[in-house]
Amino acid sequence: MHVLIIGAAGMLGRKLAARIAADGGLGGREVTALTLVDAVAAVAPAGFGGDVTVETLDLATDGAAARCVAGRPGVIVHLAAIVSGEAERDFERGYRINLDGTRLLFEAIREEHERSGYTPRVVFSSSIAVFGAPFPELIGDEFFTTPLTSYGTQKAIGELLLSDYSRRGFMDGIAIRLPTICIRPGLPNAAASGFFSNILREPLVGKEAVLPVSEEVRHWHASPRAAVGFMVRAATMDLAPLGWRRTLSLPGLSATVGEQIEALRRVAGDRAVGLIRREPDATIARIVAGWPANFSAARARGLGFVAESSFDEIIRVHIKDELGGTLAAV
Amino acid sequence: MHVLIIGAAGMLGRKLAARIAADGGLGGREVTALTLVDAVAAVAPAGFGGDVTVETLDLATDGAAARCVAGRPGVIVHLAAIVSGEAERDFERGYRINLDGTRLLFEAIREEHERSGYTPRVVFSSSIAVFGAPFPELIGDEFFTTPLTSYGTQKAIGELLLSDYSRRGFMDGIAIRLPTICIRPGLPNAAASGFFSNILREPLVGKEAVLPVSEEVRHWHASPRAAVGFMVRAATMDLAPLGWRRTLSLPGLSATVGEQIEALRRVAGDRAVGLIRREPDATIARIVAGWPANFSAARARGLGFVAESSFDEIIRVHIKDELGGTLAAV
Repeated sequence: MHVLIIGAAGMLGRKLAARIAADGGLGGREVTALTLVDAVAAVAPAGFGGDVTVETLDLATDGAAARCVAGRPGVIVHLAAIVSGEAERDFERGYRINLDGTRLLFEAIREEHERSGYTPRVVFSSSIAVFGAPFPELIGDEFFTTPLTSYGTQKAIGELLLSDYSRRGFMDGIAIRLPTICIRPGLPNAAASGFFSNILREPLVGKEAVLPVSEEVRHWHASPRAAVGFMVRAATMDLAPLGWRRTLSLPGLSATVGEQIEALRRVAGDRAVGLIRREPDATIARIVAGWPANFSAARARGLGFVAESSFDEIIRVHIKDELGGTLAAV
Repeated sequence: MHVLIIGAAGMLGRKLAARIAADGGLGGREVTALTLVDAVAAVAPAGFGGDVTVETLDLATDGAAARCVAGRPGVIVHLAAIVSGEAERDFERGYRINLDGTRLLFEAIREEHERSGYTPRVVFSSSIAVFGAPFPELIGDEFFTTPLTSYGTQKAIGELLLSDYSRRGFMDGIAIRLPTICIRPGLPNAAASGFFSNILREPLVGKEAVLPVSEEVRHWHASPRAAVGFMVRAATMDLAPLGWRRTLSLPGLSATVGEQIEALRRVAGDRAVGLIRREPDATIARIVAGWPANFSAARARGLGFVAESSFDEIIRVHIKDELGGTLAAV
């Protein structure tokens, strides 16, 4: 099987490629070729035995999507996107990359389908940003999409296109709405959601972290490892049970910041918790108040998608996957 | 005020222009100029005292949208679309007219906004085709959009774009999901939904009509006069109460075919009902079974949108507006 990852240089793209290399396949099927596409050069995963092709291109430029599809990969995982903050700052760029790029990819698949009957599995990473406040306490699987960002709008449009292109038989697509990824590895970043990860990741290595909101703030989380599991499942499961409702809100863990902190205390002790510095930020508090906090995700759970069930588990996943299994610095 | 109607040669476009001419304005404000755009030449409404410009153009061609917006109309009513059956038969044409045409219009508005601060009211006619079965018995205002046609997909995307362009301040938009229009004037047509009108319109003038489904079939209706009322309200109301949820499922009348027929009997007698010939058509029955049949429309009702409350009323509106007020032929 040939797998194409678009957005392969990003955190989730790298982790998915690494998982394919580690497993030697995808959902039990051997992967013989891996094409890694991103706007910056992706890195081939260590230990992968098959062919690796790295393509550096911008999906929204002429001919780029056709180049992606030319090798007729059986599975396409489309993760590439301009993030929320940037799509909000730069309206045109957001629409060009997130909407036009996705549509051009789907069109290139359709053209190859018309030529050769090619009908790949397409996994499109969507986002809980397709939802906009006010929310019910628990967001059900049939709740409407009223995004409050251009990014969320672009993702919701991608979901609609994917369903229609699948219904028409051009591809076999599934859109997965990922929870906020926590604990996100790497350096603290300026994203409004960054603190959810910062307040755990930094104290776990003995560093201070800033908490800009109250401990009552509730949000929707899954680990990077769970997110890779979602992608593997979406790439390999039978999609017939979904009918033409090809978008799933994925399972996650609904937790307050206070619950995150108590989990940190249980796993890493009071000293780690003492490294969290409270610096209320009204702007961040206001942005976060507009985000969804809890989903039923009943449909995805029924289809075998699994996330963590406690923040202790999310922290332990991070210690295992990112810190070599131990808490040396605390 | 300058009003632009795109899709002005269609049934609803003509009726809206006629209503503006009859009222001398829109929602109490004088209309001094009317621009009528369509792919075929629209006809100026009788008795309109202001300037009328007729433009024959295809919105999806280069520069067409900019030409529409150049006169800076304060109100734009966008009704133009390839209908459901055609968008399903011709995938590329459907996306070109229904998606690209709409997006090019919104982009032309944004460009004029960036130049001059122009921020028109935009009324976008959407459709209950944004919904796809299975449905709850009563479709609430927060039910998700899972279209089962390319047309419905294109309308749902138009709704999302309109909300985002409004939220960004480029325009002041509202998308209205019209019920099926009944009684549709004119000749019987081959649309799968045609019989809902045919079985009333034809017997009212002494002609036979074919009923291809059972009397138990339930559907969602509003008269052409109600639809024009919706557009007038949408074009002139304060949209602040909508927040950024700029799409409304409009009120209508949920009725079975049997209820339609009993209303016909009450208004026009047994002889009219006797002109309905039952010719079951499994294909049409299957298509219609996938359509929504009943909406709460609570939000739109609360915002002052009003439809008919009985089929007797819908039939009487047709007799008044289309047949000169009398049933001569029956």
